[in-house]
Amino acid sequence: MTASCQWQTQHLQNKLFQPDVVVIGSPKPEEIHFNCIETSATVISCFHMNLGKHNPPYQDLQYSDKLFGEDVGHLAAALQMQNVIKSCKQWIQAQQYKKWNLRCLKLQPLSPVPSDIEISRAQSPKAVNVLAKEIGLLADEIEIYGRTKAKVRLSLLERLKEQPDGKYILVAGITPTPLGEGKSTVTIGLAQALTAHERVNSFACLRQPSQGPTFGVKGGAAGGGYAQVIPMEEFNLHLTGDIHAISAANNLLAAAIDARILHEGTQSNKALYNRLVPLINGMRRFSAIQFARLKRLGINKTDPEMLTTDEISKFVRLNIDPSTITWQRVLDTNDRFLRKITVGQAKTEKGFFRQAQFDIAVASEIMAILALTDSLADMKERLGRMVVASDKTGQPVTAEDLGVTGALAVLMKDAIKPTLMQTLEGTPVFVHAGPFANIAHGNSSVLADKIALKLVGEEGFVVTEAGFGADIGMEKFFNIKCRASGLVPNVVVLVATVRALKMHGGGPNVTAGAPLSKEYTEENLQLVADGCCNLQKQIQIAHLFNVPVVVALNVFKSDSPAEIDLVCKIAKESGACDAVPCNHWALGGKGAVDLAQAVKEASNQKSNFRFLYSLELPIVEKIRSIAQKIYGAQDIELSPTAQSKIDVCTCQGFGNLPICMAKTHLSLSHQPEKKGVPTGFILPISDVRASIGAGFIYPLVGSMSTMPGLPTRPCFYDIDLDPVTEQVKGLF
Amino acid sequence: MTASCQWQTQHLQNKLFQPDVVVIGSPKPEEIHFNCIETSATVISCFHMNLGKHNPPYQDLQYSDKLFGEDVGHLAAALQMQNVIKSCKQWIQAQQYKKWNLRCLKLQPLSPVPSDIEISRAQSPKAVNVLAKEIGLLADEIEIYGRTKAKVRLSLLERLKEQPDGKYILVAGITPTPLGEGKSTVTIGLAQALTAHERVNSFACLRQPSQGPTFGVKGGAAGGGYAQVIPMEEFNLHLTGDIHAISAANNLLAAAIDARILHEGTQSNKALYNRLVPLINGMRRFSAIQFARLKRLGINKTDPEMLTTDEISKFVRLNIDPSTITWQRVLDTNDRFLRKITVGQAKTEKGFFRQAQFDIAVASEIMAILALTDSLADMKERLGRMVVASDKTGQPVTAEDLGVTGALAVLMKDAIKPTLMQTLEGTPVFVHAGPFANIAHGNSSVLADKIALKLVGEEGFVVTEAGFGADIGMEKFFNIKCRASGLVPNVVVLVATVRALKMHGGGPNVTAGAPLSKEYTEENLQLVADGCCNLQKQIQIAHLFNVPVVVALNVFKSDSPAEIDLVCKIAKESGACDAVPCNHWALGGKGAVDLAQAVKEASNQKSNFRFLYSLELPIVEKIRSIAQKIYGAQDIELSPTAQSKIDVCTCQGFGNLPICMAKTHLSLSHQPEKKGVPTGFILPISDVRASIGAGFIYPLVGSMSTMPGLPTRPCFYDIDLDPVTEQVKGLF
Repeated sequence: MTASCQWQTQHLQNKLFQPDVVVIGSPKPEEIHFNCIETSATVISCFHMNLGKHNPPYQDLQYSDKLFGEDVGHLAAALQMQNVIKSCKQWIQAQQYKKWNLRCLKLQPLSPVPSDIEISRAQSPKAVNVLAKEIGLLADEIEIYGRTKAKVRLSLLERLKEQPDGKYILVAGITPTPLGEGKSTVTIGLAQALTAHERVNSFACLRQPSQGPTFGVKGGAAGGGYAQVIPMEEFNLHLTGDIHAISAANNLLAAAIDARILHEGTQSNKALYNRLVPLINGMRRFSAIQFARLKRLGINKTDPEMLTTDEISKFVRLNIDPSTITWQRVLDTNDRFLRKITVGQAKTEKGFFRQAQFDIAVASEIMAILALTDSLADMKERLGRMVVASDKTGQPVTAEDLGVTGALAVLMKDAIKPTLMQTLEGTPVFVHAGPFANIAHGNSSVLADKIALKLVGEEGFVVTEAGFGADIGMEKFFNIKCRASGLVPNVVVLVATVRALKMHGGGPNVTAGAPLSKEYTEENLQLVADGCCNLQKQIQIAHLFNVPVVVALNVFKSDSPAEIDLVCKIAKESGACDAVPCNHWALGGKGAVDLAQAVKEASNQKSNFRFLYSLELPIVEKIRSIAQKIYGAQDIELSPTAQSKIDVCTCQGFGNLPICMAKTHLSLSHQPEKKGVPTGFILPISDVRASIGAGFIYPLVGSMSTMPGLPTRPCFYDIDLDPVTEQVKGLF
Repeated sequence: MTASCQWQTQHLQNKLFQPDVVVIGSPKPEEIHFNCIETSATVISCFHMNLGKHNPPYQDLQYSDKLFGEDVGHLAAALQMQNVIKSCKQWIQAQQYKKWNLRCLKLQPLSPVPSDIEISRAQSPKAVNVLAKEIGLLADEIEIYGRTKAKVRLSLLERLKEQPDGKYILVAGITPTPLGEGKSTVTIGLAQALTAHERVNSFACLRQPSQGPTFGVKGGAAGGGYAQVIPMEEFNLHLTGDIHAISAANNLLAAAIDARILHEGTQSNKALYNRLVPLINGMRRFSAIQFARLKRLGINKTDPEMLTTDEISKFVRLNIDPSTITWQRVLDTNDRFLRKITVGQAKTEKGFFRQAQFDIAVASEIMAILALTDSLADMKERLGRMVVASDKTGQPVTAEDLGVTGALAVLMKDAIKPTLMQTLEGTPVFVHAGPFANIAHGNSSVLADKIALKLVGEEGFVVTEAGFGADIGMEKFFNIKCRASGLVPNVVVLVATVRALKMHGGGPNVTAGAPLSKEYTEENLQLVADGCCNLQKQIQIAHLFNVPVVVALNVFKSDSPAEIDLVCKIAKESGACDAVPCNHWALGGKGAVDLAQAVKEASNQKSNFRFLYSLELPIVEKIRSIAQKIYGAQDIELSPTAQSKIDVCTCQGFGNLPICMAKTHLSLSHQPEKKGVPTGFILPISDVRASIGAGFIYPLVGSMSTMPGLPTRPCFYDIDLDPVTEQVKGLF
């Protein structure tokens, strides 16, 4: 590379990494020089992008033009352009996959391990634009939110579409205790180990937690100990506003439903039509969304004056049956008093009151859509498809019918971009979407995974997490998320703890808030050995999908060496490629290096991934398949409601959607108290509902709470802000 | 300045304007060199900040240390440090007030004027970090949100505390028609004129609009025509999440109230105490917020085991009387079905249902607090002071009693920072807070104004807007906002339109959505002349506060030259310093140059600002003073409820708060249909409520709706997102 070339490349990169560069230039020189470039389409398109957006080569060209006068200018320009092309080629190559030159943040773990927020606060995160640059993002591809968060634009998927994906690693867990077994910490610890210690590109992809429980019982969800996303308070609070956007979109739709019922109920067809298609300067015009509705109604007219009385009636009335409304309002607050409410009791609502409820925001179907969509166009279509009720003839009423699709897409236009953050060791993390794991599929977003797989490159790893135990989170990851994304997983990391295994082996109840029985704090090899049946079963479940398993034993202080060895031995005998103890909570990435190596090893196996069921099967057969093959049920039993809902779904053309089981995560069966590997049970399906926009049918196995409450002593008793240092206290 | 010095200053500024620079260095060299600096405290503190945070001089020092070896290193370091000190001094001077070197964006206004969103989209905003640098903000003082928005940190107030404030200009209006008379466009147009045309530093400070109405009836609020904040869709949607933060905080408090009533209602004192102060590892401990409550109860014990049964009872029971709850839930959605609801109807709430309501988010007291606070510490105190109900003995129950102060402050920690955006001509705008103008004071934030006044410097102008007509918005600006901030206004710009004046002169009704009568589209000098009584009255109101007035006549296409001249003539005869027609809507800042010059001229008058009433007056006298002197009422009439609420407020020690009248903005009186200058009326006060955290008493004059609804054809019918270009359509 010549000195001039070097300078130009450098110059170009600098320009590209300044958040703003003035755009000058005409299209002409670009055209000329495209003819000179004898390279691939990728090169041209990238080059084009640079010229169009930032135009540093052309700025130089203009300069020399002035310098030499117009006659010499063109020759000089041509010569200089050759250099520019050369440097652009080099620049483009530099954008292709390479091992990141990432400055990792040093950890000096303390013992005993301090509180999560103390650990988080003790580390200074890199500025997020520095991190973005390190992992190959262009300045144009990020939108910074404060110092430590940035949204990543989807245009990156187009730029890197030719780049092969990295390895796709799913972190799932055995059937957990109510305390959780640390899947998030394993996800983060593994990414820290891969990148900060093994020097391999890696990304952790996490769900955004609901803000409600942060102030209620659960606390935060940024990992824990020395395996955390930082700053943890930014992770746990507001983030980049995605859940707020979901609430706004969800509630606009809810308000539109009730307002529409009121307006239809209190106005004549003529009055409705006059308001929906008003005379403006003596003219009536249909809006785009109204044309779409006319088309669905089979009315092919464009002049509002030409509709017949009957067509006007069809057009103005959705005829929503209030008793069929399935769309609920949401809040990101643990507010138990909103579980069942009566709305519309003010005089202005003229007696149209009805019973309704608020769910926690992350239970919104819009959250599930955010997690499954792969583009803005797809998200908009899904939002429009959402079914909110039936009309009085039993036909589904959608968001599109209510005319709100565009507004919902507008409210969600930024939420669709994944948020970049970092681990305690300065490795990259995506936080994006966090749907419920029972009434929805409980996985982070397809888009975050797809972008991460491009950014890490062929030799890199994306570690993503599935909620609940493997029988639920992993099954949905495979059958719903991978089906939607087309991505193929390479390895499952199955998280186990000695504590949970002892519980499955017959140990006493584990309950949040209560002290642990001595079985859990003293060595007990028999309980461990007996409990490994659950681990074995979950390994077998992963094998149903033909994906290799590495068991990650999340080590606690009280685990004895013999217990640890026993688990690893049994795991390997049960078909796991490997089983390794992990100490990332106490040590950070260093404590998960063995796991990282085992995952790298396992990822070399040829993947032969397959789904559990075909979408073409009848709904009942798909449910049965999951119940029998995954949960180990003898059979399923449908309530009459469930059966009739299945019939309706099938009739309405929704029969070949995948299934999203709403079941407890505390047992493989539907009964939380049945630990280990229950068999011979009949799985009762009490109801069947559908998220048509998200694209799945969700059978209810028992009742699912969609609005948590505040306990007598909520977390917020300990949460405080120091007004001088601006530091948050009491988050955990 | 030597070449080296120049280089260093440049280098320093570059460093300072990179969003992140690695921090290296030990404290030692800083100490040494502080001893050499014989300058003012300001200089030292700025220098300290630079060294501590970014440390570029010390990086150079380290470099030379290595270069010359350790022996020569110290001497070289000392020499070099001298240079560094010199350049730092120069840098610090450069940070003091100066005329901004601001790149204004060129406007080429089209005729006819395109839609607001088309105009907004046709302009390319500067990157917000570029704008921030232009107006003297340091890299450390901004937090970027995407490309066009940034939050500004309050630390700036400390850095610039010695700098004199700029001139403080309030934009208020005459009594408006329901269509609004264009205060926001005047505010923006004036700032565009001052900075882009008169080359004077200026800031426009605006309220953040509620997102609900954007999708309902009203549309956006970013100004209009060629006087807008851009990008207008960013302004109108989500912004930087402040209203979402307010909703989250507001609703956490609401959930805490109902949950507390439930828990107290279903548990014994002992059970409550065991949960509130649980045994953890055999020990009970009070949290900080519990200690504060004990103190308020007069219990001076620190050991939870030492409380008597009676003290435990006092401690664990707030004894909230559900019928006295004044705290409502909020949503930023126009959802009329939430105006009156019943909550707590699920079985899990054990019969504790009650009637409640949702307000639109901007009606939350937390919004009023955000607008009036001047620091994080003050905001936290105000949040804690908010009264949400009375207990069964009639004592006020506060957010602090519920233990939620710290959590609310945590949720609001970013919302307290004003958001920087720009006008169509690239001049700076703060968007911050947007309280209701009836039940609250309807002004943008004290903090935005204070920061802007420092940034524009002594010769600069801050243009801020008050909601509604001057009788409400301006009166509250003076008596509430200026009292809270201590800021003294220099000039009032009073916005009038020929349309509104004709209405006051006896013209037919003006209603949103209906076409205007011909009186408004044809010349009618008599109606104009008659209607100027309202303008005259509003000028007199401003003079009660001793503030000079410039009348801005917002010109419409249909206004005749004779009508325009007549208004200006009458305005000047009525005591306005000047009265000028404005064409910023059609022409941008260029159309408001005359206004800018008039404002500059008026601002040279010596200000002798005074409040209307003393806080020490009894509540009733303060209300009467406003009713008589401002509205022109003969007297006030209190309902029995209002009288008894005033007695309670006074008893509880809230008697010397300022008054925030909740009155219609469509008339000087309480009757919207009474135009012009009504006299001889008795102002009926139906109820009196209090926002103790925000710090005002608000008497209700008639009923105030705090939750708008969706009409039959809401705005969202036209709102859409192009999934390819990502452009928003249909916002206005």
